[in-house]
Amino acid sequence: MGMTMTEKILAAHAGLEKVEPGQLISCRIDLALGNDITAPLAIKEFRQLGIEKVFDPGRIVLVPDHFTPNKDIKSAEQAKLVREFAREQGVIYYEVGRLGIEHCLLPEEGLVVPGDLIIGADSHTCTYGALGAFATGVGSTDLAAAMATGECWFRVPESIKLNYYGRLKPWVGGKDLILYTIGDLGVDGARYKALEFTGEAIGELSLDSRFTMANMAIEAGAKNGIFPVDEKTERYLEGRTKRPYRIYQSDPDARYSEIREYDVSKIEPQVAFPHLPENTKGISEVGEIKIDQVVIGSCTNGRLEDLRIAAKILKGKKVHPEVRLIIIPGTQKIYAQAIEEGLITIFIEAGAAISTPTCGPCLGGHMGVLAKGEKAVATTNRNFVGRMGHPESEVYLAGPAVAAASAIKGRIAAPEEVL
Amino acid sequence: MGMTMTEKILAAHAGLEKVEPGQLISCRIDLALGNDITAPLAIKEFRQLGIEKVFDPGRIVLVPDHFTPNKDIKSAEQAKLVREFAREQGVIYYEVGRLGIEHCLLPEEGLVVPGDLIIGADSHTCTYGALGAFATGVGSTDLAAAMATGECWFRVPESIKLNYYGRLKPWVGGKDLILYTIGDLGVDGARYKALEFTGEAIGELSLDSRFTMANMAIEAGAKNGIFPVDEKTERYLEGRTKRPYRIYQSDPDARYSEIREYDVSKIEPQVAFPHLPENTKGISEVGEIKIDQVVIGSCTNGRLEDLRIAAKILKGKKVHPEVRLIIIPGTQKIYAQAIEEGLITIFIEAGAAISTPTCGPCLGGHMGVLAKGEKAVATTNRNFVGRMGHPESEVYLAGPAVAAASAIKGRIAAPEEVL
Repeated sequence: MGMTMTEKILAAHAGLEKVEPGQLISCRIDLALGNDITAPLAIKEFRQLGIEKVFDPGRIVLVPDHFTPNKDIKSAEQAKLVREFAREQGVIYYEVGRLGIEHCLLPEEGLVVPGDLIIGADSHTCTYGALGAFATGVGSTDLAAAMATGECWFRVPESIKLNYYGRLKPWVGGKDLILYTIGDLGVDGARYKALEFTGEAIGELSLDSRFTMANMAIEAGAKNGIFPVDEKTERYLEGRTKRPYRIYQSDPDARYSEIREYDVSKIEPQVAFPHLPENTKGISEVGEIKIDQVVIGSCTNGRLEDLRIAAKILKGKKVHPEVRLIIIPGTQKIYAQAIEEGLITIFIEAGAAISTPTCGPCLGGHMGVLAKGEKAVATTNRNFVGRMGHPESEVYLAGPAVAAASAIKGRIAAPEEVL
Repeated sequence: MGMTMTEKILAAHAGLEKVEPGQLISCRIDLALGNDITAPLAIKEFRQLGIEKVFDPGRIVLVPDHFTPNKDIKSAEQAKLVREFAREQGVIYYEVGRLGIEHCLLPEEGLVVPGDLIIGADSHTCTYGALGAFATGVGSTDLAAAMATGECWFRVPESIKLNYYGRLKPWVGGKDLILYTIGDLGVDGARYKALEFTGEAIGELSLDSRFTMANMAIEAGAKNGIFPVDEKTERYLEGRTKRPYRIYQSDPDARYSEIREYDVSKIEPQVAFPHLPENTKGISEVGEIKIDQVVIGSCTNGRLEDLRIAAKILKGKKVHPEVRLIIIPGTQKIYAQAIEEGLITIFIEAGAAISTPTCGPCLGGHMGVLAKGEKAVATTNRNFVGRMGHPESEVYLAGPAVAAASAIKGRIAAPEEVL
């Protein structure tokens, strides 16, 4: 019996010819990531190990993207701790003004290539699976150990194969496919499994849309999400990275615990209702839901494609007077390119606030925290109770098209309603 | 004996022919301002008065600019309270995405004209004196009473005349003149007095530079700062406002408690050392002071002229690796214009974080709070202990040229050092 992509990558990093689901293995890691929330804890743990130097400063990346530019003294102290460790150890570090949201930044910077094994002390580390890497979120303690040893333990996950076929409807993108999928699987439907995204409709998706999908694999409980490497992937990597890489393909006789098929031609733009990403509805079934805020950004949908879609809808329009629209480019490069293309000007003229790259509102961190009773449409990845602020606030997850249309209408709306 | 501009405006708004310093008068107000820190208190006080409607919704402006986009649930609740009051009363209100820093926004929107009497529950309300208005900061209780009655009590201030002559040195602007002046007067040197800025060198200044100077009148303890209205003022007002206005001029025999003369050709770029704005030094006397952060923005220096100066210095350069440079355009219009002129692209390429308009870091609110021991150069207006964050952090006040040069060098630096 053959192996899946995920199994092959794990085997290669464990120095084994073959691995099987359930097997416990120790793998060398290609990259370990921490941010300003998780790295401080990892750094403290690392110090307690009594080791002076990290295993390889070129394989550790620290990105203080959650509470920066710092919102208070506490977050400033945390960021300072990370910064000082980064300087001391010489690890890869991105500073305010030169950073991006970690999961937008690392691929853009060429730090991720196909076949990599990447861990990050952030649950959405699974994003990098879009490039055919094995990437998964770990706790701060695992990050500390990995920084010291360059290794990490894994239980090899079973794989679920998701096959998407058919032609996408207008305004349907990666976010709608993944929300639909999570609605189908449930938030623990893929618990500790690998989600392998395949099929002709996946081949049609841009890398930006694939990042969005891989990013939310964790919202179905998956250990990782992974995409086959194709010409689009290779084109994305050109000029970004000089690292050699190996492309792993799932064998035709690889073992899957489950295979699901999705006819994307039947999927309309999706909205996940509070308070779980699995509470999805097609936009036509949403009904009248008045909103107070719209957030377009995050590691899920803060990329150029997302901003282009939003701009297409917002061009020449005005944000509803009772709505705050907050747009957060994922990285400085995306921001600069969005200026170059005139997107930021469209947003400002529409009445949107543009933020420097930060995770901010997604986790109720800063830059758009909700008050009691407020409702937001967000292109982010989680709509748990209190995720964006007050426990009695509500978050509706959607893609950038629905988010932009909703900002104009003042209620959750389909793109067609404003065009 | 004649009257000063300030006395004439106060007399006109008290319905009197003449007023004298020390006289207690009740004046009708043309505009009353509150923000997301001060308005909630004023609104609560207003409710307690048992009055249903504000005296004139067209003369009350609310701008939630301090902790927005909201940094936490508490600030979100405060902003919500202001928003709901604004909708209920129909007062002039600017929302996140459509706002600016209040003191940059109101003149830009044509809400201030010469001869106005303006109060604001914010100490830097004195900014509007740049347009030949009497403008002063009040407490939230005064704002509440003014919202109810349209009137406010004042003690007529004595006036100090400041006469600036000579030619400005390169890179010296309004910020340097006002820092130098505060260094000369001391932080309570003008306590409860009107500062009247006059002289040929003032005539040469742009309106942006005049706003900067009027803005910091309070830092010498002044009740208000005021500028004569000239052709530049009238050009600034063209197209911004349709309100008729009256120009008041100080009589040749007006009474001043003091007259000071400044030869601006002897003033070099200024830096105010911690922890008072009066601790000024010329840039050549600063010495080696390593910094962690630079903030260019605020109601003092977040205008287009400031961004143009910063861009001139930052073009093609990189921010020092150990410095965070945070640039905050004062309003959405300034932001859009800065994009149009290529300034924002210069900043991003240099490695600066660009924020949506907010007071944020100036008051240690958000968007760049300092950790223990950190030092910042800021174009803001106050460098009191803990003003930008930790009580053991330090703020050095300067104009945009010194701020930009310092961001590049990683220490407080003169513009000439990087050009």
